[in-house]
Amino acid sequence: MSTKDVLVLRDLLATNKQAAAAIRKELRARGILAVNLLSSPGSGKTTLLEALAERLRDRYRLAVIEGDIETERDAERIRAKGIPAWQITTGGACHLEARMIGKVLGEVPAAIDFLFIENVGNLVCPAGYDLGEELRCVLLSSPEGDDKPAKYPQAFLTADCLILTKSDLVPYLPFDPAKAAAEALSIKPGLRVFTLSALRGDGVDELAAFFVEALERLRSVRA
Amino acid sequence: MSTKDVLVLRDLLATNKQAAAAIRKELRARGILAVNLLSSPGSGKTTLLEALAERLRDRYRLAVIEGDIETERDAERIRAKGIPAWQITTGGACHLEARMIGKVLGEVPAAIDFLFIENVGNLVCPAGYDLGEELRCVLLSSPEGDDKPAKYPQAFLTADCLILTKSDLVPYLPFDPAKAAAEALSIKPGLRVFTLSALRGDGVDELAAFFVEALERLRSVRA
Repeated sequence: MSTKDVLVLRDLLATNKQAAAAIRKELRARGILAVNLLSSPGSGKTTLLEALAERLRDRYRLAVIEGDIETERDAERIRAKGIPAWQITTGGACHLEARMIGKVLGEVPAAIDFLFIENVGNLVCPAGYDLGEELRCVLLSSPEGDDKPAKYPQAFLTADCLILTKSDLVPYLPFDPAKAAAEALSIKPGLRVFTLSALRGDGVDELAAFFVEALERLRSVRA
Repeated sequence: MSTKDVLVLRDLLATNKQAAAAIRKELRARGILAVNLLSSPGSGKTTLLEALAERLRDRYRLAVIEGDIETERDAERIRAKGIPAWQITTGGACHLEARMIGKVLGEVPAAIDFLFIENVGNLVCPAGYDLGEELRCVLLSSPEGDDKPAKYPQAFLTADCLILTKSDLVPYLPFDPAKAAAEALSIKPGLRVFTLSALRGDGVDELAAFFVEALERLRSVRA
């Protein structure tokens, strides 16, 4: 990168940070817990959101913002679960930015409890962009391999929680969940770790409870 | 993106294209077939290279350039198979660029047959960067889902071959290889499709034969 490129990138990130701070302030004022889900393509973000929707929708009001390069597919899957969803297609960009969330936010009902943001499937680019979320969770699916945290450290360093997905495939794979968790924790001590299979439903209740606790904490601070 | 950002990106891509053209010219003159492997993290690029090394190393001279954000892990795995390997760590960048390949190329023995380049695990960024390769192959592993081609079209549009990996997991997954292939072919007609399990060895011979044919074609054009 030339000095000019570095300066352009610094400008972009500073602008994004400002937009993210405004979003965070607004969401906190509304008492909404925003969660940014980040992972490689196909790690199971949408399937996890479907499973969370089933567990939370009777007691809480949810909304989902979906990020993808192309297609409305993921938003359609979420809507099929009775949850309002907005699809952002970046048309080429490998991550969401705060201003994209800001644009959609005006359409999201004010009286919701959870706003889940599914980032573009990418374990690199989204890590640098704060979207104004309260919690950032990185997903790592068992078929991806337990060697990934050290190879993509920024995604794990900037996360609050690690979700090891597709645990139902572990018997067929050279994947050690304890090794993956330990490596992620060596990068980011204090990371909350969840292991689950959204397809089978194993472990999803624990993650849902973690989000509910975080929502209650957010609202108690506000009160 | 602002106009300034677009101009910076256009400069970067034009510079990359020039560097890639020089590399392609040099590799063709040397009679080396260069293959750029591109996929999400954990789709099985390194495991595939290990399996190809076992099948090709007795008859051909191979070299591998590994791209990662961090760690020397993949190059070490390849060296353990008796193949010389160079690790490029981008330190944050989500793709390799031609100038990075150019820098390493001086160290790669002149008398090799195949140069495999394993790009940074990312289904978005690497698609825009020509590395001077003769063939570009995109990997899609069965756990990632058969809905990925339309969501990440650029990677499939710019590829010459599609490698559906981890076929051994298909019985445990909601994944239809025919659907994935059809969707990729609708984006890029003529794409050569291979289905394999590098871990079990199924289908790797067919891919190895495809690369050997491509090498022979490259040399016959040169002769």
